[in-house]
Amino acid sequence: MPKIVLDAMGSDNYPEPELQAAVQAAQLFGDEVILTGPEATLAPKLAALGAKNVRLVDAPEVFEMTDKISPGMLKRAKNSMAVGMQMVKSGEADAFVTMGNTGGAMANALVQLGRIRGVIRPALSGLFPVKNGKCAVVDIGANAECKPEYLVQFALMGSAYADKVLGIRNPRVGLISNGEEAGKGNDLVKATHPLLAATSGLNFVGNIEGKELFGGHADVAVTDGFTGNVLLKSSEAVARLLVDTLREELTSSFVTKIGAALARPAFGKLRKMLDPAEIGAAPLLGVDGLVFVGHGRSDARAVISAIRTARQAVESNLMVHLRAAIEKQAQSLKLEESA
Amino acid sequence: MPKIVLDAMGSDNYPEPELQAAVQAAQLFGDEVILTGPEATLAPKLAALGAKNVRLVDAPEVFEMTDKISPGMLKRAKNSMAVGMQMVKSGEADAFVTMGNTGGAMANALVQLGRIRGVIRPALSGLFPVKNGKCAVVDIGANAECKPEYLVQFALMGSAYADKVLGIRNPRVGLISNGEEAGKGNDLVKATHPLLAATSGLNFVGNIEGKELFGGHADVAVTDGFTGNVLLKSSEAVARLLVDTLREELTSSFVTKIGAALARPAFGKLRKMLDPAEIGAAPLLGVDGLVFVGHGRSDARAVISAIRTARQAVESNLMVHLRAAIEKQAQSLKLEESA
Repeated sequence: MPKIVLDAMGSDNYPEPELQAAVQAAQLFGDEVILTGPEATLAPKLAALGAKNVRLVDAPEVFEMTDKISPGMLKRAKNSMAVGMQMVKSGEADAFVTMGNTGGAMANALVQLGRIRGVIRPALSGLFPVKNGKCAVVDIGANAECKPEYLVQFALMGSAYADKVLGIRNPRVGLISNGEEAGKGNDLVKATHPLLAATSGLNFVGNIEGKELFGGHADVAVTDGFTGNVLLKSSEAVARLLVDTLREELTSSFVTKIGAALARPAFGKLRKMLDPAEIGAAPLLGVDGLVFVGHGRSDARAVISAIRTARQAVESNLMVHLRAAIEKQAQSLKLEESA
Repeated sequence: MPKIVLDAMGSDNYPEPELQAAVQAAQLFGDEVILTGPEATLAPKLAALGAKNVRLVDAPEVFEMTDKISPGMLKRAKNSMAVGMQMVKSGEADAFVTMGNTGGAMANALVQLGRIRGVIRPALSGLFPVKNGKCAVVDIGANAECKPEYLVQFALMGSAYADKVLGIRNPRVGLISNGEEAGKGNDLVKATHPLLAATSGLNFVGNIEGKELFGGHADVAVTDGFTGNVLLKSSEAVARLLVDTLREELTSSFVTKIGAALARPAFGKLRKMLDPAEIGAAPLLGVDGLVFVGHGRSDARAVISAIRTARQAVESNLMVHLRAAIEKQAQSLKLEESA
């Protein structure tokens, strides 16, 4: 029975979505849910919800993103992220789930959990809604500058995640580029392409562009953290612009309002596609413990979905598979060297 | 009276949109339009349209994008792009307009027209539909690897273009990054930010993300050609995915079909936003002559819109302003060195 520790202070509307989700998830899955956050504030709210099988662990500090913070300070930190991850580190919990800042989660995770042995750079993964499914993009922001060997590890870890958590057997891995042809790309992409092609155990489908990514031609898309972050934020912004424009116009006249009401079911699929609850949460890949980060806009339903994703990762032994993939790569590199 | 030379062979449905556009534009603007393409094929079609004030210049070859092509071969090329640009070079025409491949246009332009004196790397610009307007993104694909000084020139040229052709006084220039704060970015962005801030005559608004770009907070967005290309293609793919999903669902039942029919006017703004005719055409920046590239999906109306854009560039003396901006930068760099 997976033991999940949930950050009560992560979402844009914290702690309400998290409190409700914790109470409902404990009931739904029949397992205790641990919540981290300031006990003084949260305990009465939790009691008011009639919580059963939800344990509150005090985390009195508030995590602020600053450049001045030192690893030593972070190590002793008592914010809701740090406390939750300390429980994963000690084995008291199996996975940590937060709707908070992804960069903050990574900063805390590097200090509290460290890296998987052999991982050069941990990465942030993000799930993108694509035609008839989802695509996991790695890295969406942890490493603005990357080397080819980082991207190979992103591919291996993304692939294990897609297999074990998203349930996609032999996931197709694409390399984001400015052209599908093998010779296209910036220096990083050109150097990475042959490495990915030569990595055993990867279903590498070559370079991909927006058309392939959003057309659902890859299950994992690998890129440097700068490009991945620009891609993520631009995609969200385009979707928002289109949806806002349509909404504005649909409510601009009596006739279009009636039309919109009749056509309402048709917007369901679009809404579902952009719903954080459908996306769930995506893991930090390469840190030595399970950490899942969901969308800040999450409501209780989306938080429960994130918890479900984390439980799936625990039950499928994702950590074991991630460690094995990196270990296998290290060994094959050693074999190559000695050959 | 601006003399425009139009590539008859550029659009996805060539040459029909181009032929119709040439005939209509000649009438609309009262100036002769020159068309380049294989005379044998085009002359009868043009006659059938009852063309007046449209001159056909023979370009019997077809341009193919290949890696093996040499500059010497390109120089003597008789494809519709090369022939049109040769006319701009010789002064027989003021601007060349094509709906063809942007990379092909750049390859031809570098050979036929060369670079503006002082320009290190010419760039491709692309017009993105954003909230309440458009944003010119430079570079969208010519230079996969960039140096900070290239991006400064992209900013200067993009700014002159936005001012003279798009009619935006004192255009706001943003630097695409993975965070709005000045310290954020990959190495290129971090090195470019202070240079842009120190460039006189630029209205630099700092780093921008997708939210700012598509929210209409910048008129010009500067980035390397790899990121710009990924951004362009992803944005198009996201828009297509959303629109296709909506269309599919809207026609899935009798009731939603009626709703869609009633709500139809509301889709007008969205359609307009994504319409190539609204976008018109964007220039190659830094080549020594006016070349405008429109969308491959263009119909006759979109081609006319591209011709209108090119005429505006001629009438506002864009080339003179581009040369002046680069010259001024070179002088200020010299002054700095000697100081």
